[in-house]
Amino acid sequence: MAELFGARLRERRRELGALCVGIDPSASVLESWGRPPTIEGLEYVAREILEVVGELVAVVKVQVAFFERFGSAGLRVLESLLGDARDVGVVTIADAKRGDIASTNEGYAEAWLGAGSPLRSDAVTASPYLGVAALAPLYRVAAETGRGVFVLAATSNDEGRLVQDARDVQGRRVRDLVLDDVAAYNDRLDGLGSLGVVLGATREPPAFDLSRLGGPVLVPGVGTQGGSLEQVARLSAACAPDTVIVNVSRAIAAAGPDRRALRDATRRWRDDAAVL
Amino acid sequence: MAELFGARLRERRRELGALCVGIDPSASVLESWGRPPTIEGLEYVAREILEVVGELVAVVKVQVAFFERFGSAGLRVLESLLGDARDVGVVTIADAKRGDIASTNEGYAEAWLGAGSPLRSDAVTASPYLGVAALAPLYRVAAETGRGVFVLAATSNDEGRLVQDARDVQGRRVRDLVLDDVAAYNDRLDGLGSLGVVLGATREPPAFDLSRLGGPVLVPGVGTQGGSLEQVARLSAACAPDTVIVNVSRAIAAAGPDRRALRDATRRWRDDAAVL
Repeated sequence: MAELFGARLRERRRELGALCVGIDPSASVLESWGRPPTIEGLEYVAREILEVVGELVAVVKVQVAFFERFGSAGLRVLESLLGDARDVGVVTIADAKRGDIASTNEGYAEAWLGAGSPLRSDAVTASPYLGVAALAPLYRVAAETGRGVFVLAATSNDEGRLVQDARDVQGRRVRDLVLDDVAAYNDRLDGLGSLGVVLGATREPPAFDLSRLGGPVLVPGVGTQGGSLEQVARLSAACAPDTVIVNVSRAIAAAGPDRRALRDATRRWRDDAAVL
Repeated sequence: MAELFGARLRERRRELGALCVGIDPSASVLESWGRPPTIEGLEYVAREILEVVGELVAVVKVQVAFFERFGSAGLRVLESLLGDARDVGVVTIADAKRGDIASTNEGYAEAWLGAGSPLRSDAVTASPYLGVAALAPLYRVAAETGRGVFVLAATSNDEGRLVQDARDVQGRRVRDLVLDDVAAYNDRLDGLGSLGVVLGATREPPAFDLSRLGGPVLVPGVGTQGGSLEQVARLSAACAPDTVIVNVSRAIAAAGPDRRALRDATRRWRDDAAVL
């Protein structure tokens, strides 16, 4: 049987800390690194970040949109990058925010979590607009292959409140309903927390009791997006030990392209994240 | 300036009717056609459906998940298929349900709507879990290139109610808030309705007055998913004339692989959809 994602993530986190570095080769990052907005520019920046940070941190999160921007050629670069990440042993999260009806999610589950897929990652992010239950094919394939899923609960951007702060007839907010449903799936599945959630650092803590989530919490929004590690620490205090990972993307990428500056920035964020 | 999506869709719809055929080469469709679950099987089924239906109907909707399942090789097939669709002149909707924070949506906007992108489609579906406003880069690129966006409001699956039926402090449901926001963007943009919404046939009509949406309505869920054309006709009666298109996927694909049966099924659904 495959090693379970929840267990592997916790092990890497104990070893290297709570920092997850985002690999977000956006048009603006390529420009700030003096690289052209081409597939070659994309590949250069993504590889450089992975090479520098891969052995320093527990987790990297690749932003799929910036690869997809170049179509199939961009995904080919991503496939190669994910292969290199596997060689290094760093845990990979594909930030794809996929989500559809259940029968369609079979396709996304195979793509990102299937045993032989060229895009296979240790975990994928998923969007619950069509329901947490509709994502079941992702949970099933994750359980089969020892991989994980992070379901969006509350994202770091203000515009997300429109949907995520809405309430059901009992007054519970959408983000809390998502947390509750993910906790229920964790109970039913491996019990080792292969299903996680995304909770933005910039948002107030949820009403849901995070200690019973039973899985990891990925926290974006720190650094350029305005969230602080103090905010993450408050969130983390409510969670089970060693389950919160904090993602920093632009604030680290901005230190490049100089390798030494990139390494120093990563180490600084990693050390600062030791409070979690 | 590029021809506007809303105008082009309306023109094709007047000519060929309200039917949109879904190209959903899922594992189960490949199997029912006697094709292997491989990239060759995928390409065969997708091309056959396009070749048969491309000149019969106004619109085709490709389900991206079933191409993405095969990684970059699957997207290469999709790029080639979209090129063929452009040659035929059929309107293409990439059913990708993408959605992230605004800066990330720049990548998705370029991928699906950018002028030179290999994946460029006439329109793309987008998921508003992170807010309708976060999708603004998609609206901007669509306006620049004469393309369109369909934002999910109410989807055809029951699990979607968890999020889509939740209410804001004034008691308005998420699906209605989405409709309202999309209508406001249509007002501000071209006025010719390049921003549309997805409304499942299986769901009760929204509280929002659809006649002021200012854009097209894509209705999935008819056929295998249990929705009927009568339900769509009731929805359509509330909309501006010639703005509703109805998607049928599995019920048509099930008629294959025989070309004649596939053509007959498409014609039958197209004629039935004339009530819209």
